[in-house]
Amino acid sequence: MPANKPELPAATISDLGHADSIITISPQAVVANWRYLASLSSPTTETAAVVKADGYGLGASQLAPHLADAGCRTFFVMSLDEAITLRGALRDSGHDSCAVLILGGCHPGQEDEMLAHDITPVINTREQLERLGKMARQRGAKIAAALHVDTGMSRLGLDEKEAAWLAIQVAEGNALVDGLSPRWLMSHLSAAEDDCDPANEAQLQAFTALRAAFPDIASSLANSGGTLRGPAFHFDMTRPGIALYGLHPAGIGASRQQAEQAGHLMPAIRWDARILQIRDAKAGEAVGYNGTHVLKRDSRVAIIGVGYADGYMRALGNRAAVVIAGHEAPVIGRVSMDSITVDATDIPAARLQTADTATVLGDGYHLARMADDAGTIGYEILTQLGHRPRRLYLPT
Amino acid sequence: MPANKPELPAATISDLGHADSIITISPQAVVANWRYLASLSSPTTETAAVVKADGYGLGASQLAPHLADAGCRTFFVMSLDEAITLRGALRDSGHDSCAVLILGGCHPGQEDEMLAHDITPVINTREQLERLGKMARQRGAKIAAALHVDTGMSRLGLDEKEAAWLAIQVAEGNALVDGLSPRWLMSHLSAAEDDCDPANEAQLQAFTALRAAFPDIASSLANSGGTLRGPAFHFDMTRPGIALYGLHPAGIGASRQQAEQAGHLMPAIRWDARILQIRDAKAGEAVGYNGTHVLKRDSRVAIIGVGYADGYMRALGNRAAVVIAGHEAPVIGRVSMDSITVDATDIPAARLQTADTATVLGDGYHLARMADDAGTIGYEILTQLGHRPRRLYLPT
Repeated sequence: MPANKPELPAATISDLGHADSIITISPQAVVANWRYLASLSSPTTETAAVVKADGYGLGASQLAPHLADAGCRTFFVMSLDEAITLRGALRDSGHDSCAVLILGGCHPGQEDEMLAHDITPVINTREQLERLGKMARQRGAKIAAALHVDTGMSRLGLDEKEAAWLAIQVAEGNALVDGLSPRWLMSHLSAAEDDCDPANEAQLQAFTALRAAFPDIASSLANSGGTLRGPAFHFDMTRPGIALYGLHPAGIGASRQQAEQAGHLMPAIRWDARILQIRDAKAGEAVGYNGTHVLKRDSRVAIIGVGYADGYMRALGNRAAVVIAGHEAPVIGRVSMDSITVDATDIPAARLQTADTATVLGDGYHLARMADDAGTIGYEILTQLGHRPRRLYLPT
Repeated sequence: MPANKPELPAATISDLGHADSIITISPQAVVANWRYLASLSSPTTETAAVVKADGYGLGASQLAPHLADAGCRTFFVMSLDEAITLRGALRDSGHDSCAVLILGGCHPGQEDEMLAHDITPVINTREQLERLGKMARQRGAKIAAALHVDTGMSRLGLDEKEAAWLAIQVAEGNALVDGLSPRWLMSHLSAAEDDCDPANEAQLQAFTALRAAFPDIASSLANSGGTLRGPAFHFDMTRPGIALYGLHPAGIGASRQQAEQAGHLMPAIRWDARILQIRDAKAGEAVGYNGTHVLKRDSRVAIIGVGYADGYMRALGNRAAVVIAGHEAPVIGRVSMDSITVDATDIPAARLQTADTATVLGDGYHLARMADDAGTIGYEILTQLGHRPRRLYLPT
């Protein structure tokens, strides 16, 4: 990553208030990342934003209006709950014309509320297609929809056979689909971050073939990985998610070219926590639950106010590090529910004495590294951030 | 576990509303567990309740009033934020006389709010002791406090030397501690769930010795594991946490005696999720991100509306199971952010066709098993439950 990439400012102890940790979020970084991703595709390709799971944990209602200000017109969430909340935030910020799509589809009984809030379903099954088509005909109105076809995830979406059947209905102007106004044909990549996975080419071919059967509908295949993979994957709309939040989907395993791309993504988050206590401990003493770390030397141990209940994953015990006064300090012992213990022995005493917070994520210890240390992906770290840490949105 | 242990009722599809999953919580089970834990110690031993991390993810403000109704007088949380929220819930339910203690201690600048909300600090450091003592003397008031001494965690609390120094101050009626009214002497067990860890006996001895130096203060050592370990660990107050929520701290590794105890703990939670789609897939097709599962036979795959953003840990991919219409179905492929894929091939078609939800936790797939499948402890599963699932509290 470029050395001059701007870091988010450290939170001060007074920012913490009554909480023991604080997550600082930069809407400006998210907007910059959206602009970078948009710059990768041609001007005729729309760049949507995936803000499901509460904007990957960073706040859909707080971030989407900024993206809409920047020109984003189409937002994806998972459930009707998320869609209604987002619709409210867009309306309140004067962006009611933006489209909100629910990836999970419209489930029986949700139709009225979905339409009342001007939410567009992503149709994943023939049942959804028929139910919504019938409803539209009964009302004499057109229901806008996206058609989602599975091309290799075996997850949500119509299968190949259903898609072929649907193409015929659309071509023949069958009454079944008469009430629906299909705006997008979509599919989802299963391994877009992996340069070596042949699934990318296979899915691209399958989607290209499919698309030919729906010549009048805009098409969309690319998640963040697809957007970063190049023009062949862009079609009419890209749908980046994780990269908006500053993480390259390849994480710490990025190739050289991916690392170059990652250099253009701005970190959108940092996480600082209160130093609850600093203690001296003797060689041979055990640290934390079940004594999984035994001190090899007389040590200074700092106890930091984040634990797994805050979303600081338990898998980070004895693996991660924090940064105190510019010095890295390794996490020793298990992660507790509300705190972690770090070895602060090598931090100059004068620096340690005046420190009141530790950076547990960000500046010096980045998301890709945390995910690797936890044996997972940054997506899980972000979406699992707890509600106990205070959240601070930087002004734009 | 006893075969007749009552399960929480399954949520219906209409309970889900606009959400894709629902967490059902039984305050009655939490109260029953508190009563069981209280029954293990003598009537002169108080049984407190640890409701930090929002009641281990199940809702401190919803559960604490029920515990107070049942006779619980003392509650522990971690931070001032949590304490103020809990104080409000106790006040609103007519339980303002209950004590609320903050385990993290009182940090500089928090004193006024702490006292204004009648919150009792757990004093972990000499600095906290001196600061609060000075404040009390300035105000001419007594500040109630608990004194926390570390006996083998190397985490929060005074160390042995500081404790010895403090004992002298208390014995001599030193002005330093004059303003403080120490009500409890506390320590915390590091491996209470482990029958074989010598730390239990070592901590018990260290605490017993300490206690002798503070003869006029009530003492407390036992978390859930200590409470279940037997009378030697109970002293004047037990402080169960995890067991209140229905999980024996030994989890799936429980000894025979621990399993018998676990049989007395009522499950407090179940989690049901929407079946988003059921699809047929062919042998050889890959499932989920990066195709980590390849179907060995023509299969029926059900897509369920929980993912890691809901707190369904990513580590459960290719390991866990769900229950659909009374049949267990293994999770195949990776856990996605918003969904999981399960192999539903062996579920009779007629049963599957009418099923609209899957049980992802509870009835047939219990917390201890989920924690084991995820390679973690049930504490992390509970406290990491996301905010996207709907929450339903059963009437008491």
